[in-house]
Amino acid sequence: MNNFESECNQEKLTATQRSQVKRIPQRSNYDRTTIYQILDEGLVCHVGFVVDNQPFVIPTAYGRINDKLYIHGSPASRMLRSVIGSVEVCVTVTLIDGLVLARSAFHHSMNYRSVVIFGQAEIVNNSDEKLAALKAFTEHVIPGRWDDVRQPNRQELQGTMVLALPLIEASAKIRTGMPKDDEADYDLPVWAGILPLELIAGNPISDSQLPKNIPLPGYVHNYDRTTHFKME
Amino acid sequence: MNNFESECNQEKLTATQRSQVKRIPQRSNYDRTTIYQILDEGLVCHVGFVVDNQPFVIPTAYGRINDKLYIHGSPASRMLRSVIGSVEVCVTVTLIDGLVLARSAFHHSMNYRSVVIFGQAEIVNNSDEKLAALKAFTEHVIPGRWDDVRQPNRQELQGTMVLALPLIEASAKIRTGMPKDDEADYDLPVWAGILPLELIAGNPISDSQLPKNIPLPGYVHNYDRTTHFKME
Repeated sequence: MNNFESECNQEKLTATQRSQVKRIPQRSNYDRTTIYQILDEGLVCHVGFVVDNQPFVIPTAYGRINDKLYIHGSPASRMLRSVIGSVEVCVTVTLIDGLVLARSAFHHSMNYRSVVIFGQAEIVNNSDEKLAALKAFTEHVIPGRWDDVRQPNRQELQGTMVLALPLIEASAKIRTGMPKDDEADYDLPVWAGILPLELIAGNPISDSQLPKNIPLPGYVHNYDRTTHFKME
Repeated sequence: MNNFESECNQEKLTATQRSQVKRIPQRSNYDRTTIYQILDEGLVCHVGFVVDNQPFVIPTAYGRINDKLYIHGSPASRMLRSVIGSVEVCVTVTLIDGLVLARSAFHHSMNYRSVVIFGQAEIVNNSDEKLAALKAFTEHVIPGRWDDVRQPNRQELQGTMVLALPLIEASAKIRTGMPKDDEADYDLPVWAGILPLELIAGNPISDSQLPKNIPLPGYVHNYDRTTHFKME
C-alpha cells in the first residue's frame, strides 16, 4: 500500500450540515459502498467552485483510489490562479436510470443515482500519487486500457494538474421504482410506468491511421459500463 | 406569443469574462443554435450556487422556452432561504458522446458536448409562465406526454418552485473526432479510435397498478433521444 492510500475505515459517512440531503430525505444514502459504486459507474463529474462569489460548474474526468477522488485540475485552473494548494469544491456525479412516467404531470420524475461531495481539493505534487491518479483516470473510463498504452512520460506527468478530494463529507441520493401518483389518479386511462435509460456503447470506430493487423481489444469489444459497475 | 416569450434576436452570444472558454478555446462555440440543441438533448442540468462562500452543485430537471431556461427550484431551496427573488447561478449540461482511446494514456479523452450558462435565476411567480415552464419540463423529457396526463392543479402549481434563467451569457464546448496522438506514437501496435456512447431507452416497464387495456403510447415505444434532439 502506498503512503497516499488509506483503508476505508468507516462504513457509513456522517451527514454534516452541508452534506445532509434536505429534500426528500428518504432518498438519501450515506453508505460508503453505495457512494463508491455510483462514483465508479459515472464517467464525468461536475466540479463546483467559487471565484469572487461567482459559482462555476465544470464537467471533468475523475478516478477513485480508496477514499480519495482524483479530478483533472485543468478545468479548475481559473480557480487555482487565486488560491495556493487547495480549494473548496462541491463535486457531483449523476447517473440517469430512467424516466418515471406518472398519470399526472406533477408526479413525473426520473430514476437516478447521484453523489454530492464537499471538501477541500488539494493539488497533488507527489509524482507517485499523481501517476497512480492518472492510471485511475484511465482505468475508471475503460478498465484494462492502462497496460496497453504508452504511459505518461515525465513531461506529461508534470503538465497534468491533478486534484485530490478526500471522500469524507458525501451523500448519495437515489430514486428507484414506479411513479407515486395521487390515489384518485390511478383510475385514469393513462399509461404509467418506467422507461429505463442506459448509456450504451455502439460499434467501435478505428482510427484511420491505425497500422494494419491491430486487433480490437476485448475490453473495447465487450465494453459494458453496467456489467462493470452497476449495483447488484 | 405570451408575454414571457421573446424572440431569439441574436444568433451568436457574446463571450464575457466568465463565459469565455479558457482551456482549449478551439473547442468553444457561442452559436445560439448549437447551445440550444445541446440543452434540448440533455435530461439533467447541474445547478451551481453559493451559500456563505460554499459552492453547491445539484442535479435537477429543466426545460427551455425560447431564450429562457426553466429549472426546478426545489433543489435550490437551501439557497433561496437566504435570498429573495433571484440568485446567481452557473448551470451546466453535459452530453457524453464517446470514449476517445489514444495510443498514449495522456491523450485519452472523451467526445462530449457541454453548455455552461451564467446569470441570475429568478423565481417565476406569474402562473401562466409557471404552467408553461411545467409543460416545458415534461415535453423536454418526453415529447408528446403533456397532452396525455392530468395537468397540474392550482395546488400543484403553487407547490412547485420554478426558476427562470435568461440564456444570455452561455458557451458550448464540443469535442468530436479521433484521438490526437503524438507523432511518434502513431506506429505503436495499440488499437486507437472511438467507442461511441449513447443514452438508449430499454423496454418500458408498465406500472403493476395500471388498469387493463391501456396501450403503450407511441412516444414511449419509439423513444429515441438521439432522433429527437441530436445535431445534424
